[in-house]
Amino acid sequence: MDKGTFEVLDVRAGIEAENDRFAALVRARTEREGTYLINLMASPGAGKTSVLCRVIDALGDRFRIGVMEADMDADVDARTVAAHGAEVVQLHTGTSCHMDARMTLQGLDAFGSLPDVIVLENVGNLVCPAEFDVGADLRLMILSVPEGDDKPLKYPLMFTVSDMMLINKIDTAPIFDFDPERCEKNVRALHPDMEIFPVSAKTGEGIDAFCRRLTERIDAARAGKRKGATP
Amino acid sequence: MDKGTFEVLDVRAGIEAENDRFAALVRARTEREGTYLINLMASPGAGKTSVLCRVIDALGDRFRIGVMEADMDADVDARTVAAHGAEVVQLHTGTSCHMDARMTLQGLDAFGSLPDVIVLENVGNLVCPAEFDVGADLRLMILSVPEGDDKPLKYPLMFTVSDMMLINKIDTAPIFDFDPERCEKNVRALHPDMEIFPVSAKTGEGIDAFCRRLTERIDAARAGKRKGATP
Repeated sequence: MDKGTFEVLDVRAGIEAENDRFAALVRARTEREGTYLINLMASPGAGKTSVLCRVIDALGDRFRIGVMEADMDADVDARTVAAHGAEVVQLHTGTSCHMDARMTLQGLDAFGSLPDVIVLENVGNLVCPAEFDVGADLRLMILSVPEGDDKPLKYPLMFTVSDMMLINKIDTAPIFDFDPERCEKNVRALHPDMEIFPVSAKTGEGIDAFCRRLTERIDAARAGKRKGATP
Repeated sequence: MDKGTFEVLDVRAGIEAENDRFAALVRARTEREGTYLINLMASPGAGKTSVLCRVIDALGDRFRIGVMEADMDADVDARTVAAHGAEVVQLHTGTSCHMDARMTLQGLDAFGSLPDVIVLENVGNLVCPAEFDVGADLRLMILSVPEGDDKPLKYPLMFTVSDMMLINKIDTAPIFDFDPERCEKNVRALHPDMEIFPVSAKTGEGIDAFCRRLTERIDAARAGKRKGATP
């Protein structure tokens, strides 16, 4: 092989997504109880837990908020989030690198009566969680500035399936070679109408605007669920 | 459920690792040709490609270096690495979030005669790649400062199976709440004799020390392979 050139091999191993039946059960359950389910996805260290704590602080008076913390192991995030006053279920996924709909349904069962809003904090992984419909109302992803503005090119599925995206750690943009406009351009090439909010969970920048929009979405969806519910 | 408390559910779905046979084939092949195979693993954006370019620049005169770029899609990293003078094979994993030994063997086949050193740049993922033995001589992982010093607690397998670890973007440690000593303590609780090198692929800090140690490991392993090889 010559230096400076490369070949392309397709080593795709098909995976079967057989979790649609469970996703439908999740949807039926949250529909019945008027619960808004958010699937929160990001790489490790992008700031899922910190953002979540900001959301609980901002919206905890308005909504009864539950959290499902999915981790391969450990419960450090569950402790953090519980300290902010949410009802928390810790899900240990073992060797599984993502949540699927069956595991999500198990998580719902642990709540008893469902809270108004449940946030599933997925395993830190920009790849596999994107492939599994867990029956959520909103797929919310976080990209953090230090990861780089080229990530939509390399992990396109996550940016394609998510409804809303936070660019976290925006306060560090000057330090890294991160161009928010280039990032947005890369995202919109995959997903033209993605809702994008630059935020900093650390400084609080952008959190209000994001929470206002999130509240609109929650209210609209829950009104629809209650209308559709049979007594 | 009470606020401020949480339950723990075990939703582990067992996965079967049936790739030992292929890992043995990879080892036989690299043994025969005296090739040192490195499995490079990290989260998205931790700096795998930047570190790799530094290694190619530092060791490219001493060793014939090949790279297998594993990505779900795209070839931006392959272009970058090829520009530094390595022989590059781009592997498209499709929906698969990690490389397994079978895919690795396919990658080796694309080289023809194998280079002295091959670096498999795995899919950006701190979870799944840790579960698959691809037949490498060295499992090298990168944790980057912005991800946080608590990552060993949440993704323990990667820190357990890796032989050597880089803490990249060390130049940004003052900006983030990253304590290198706490990080090291978390790592050593899982893996007491992990070799840890703080580096910055951006500034070059720490790269020389890391490359010296890497060269020692490569030379020792290749001498053993050549001794063991039958003509």
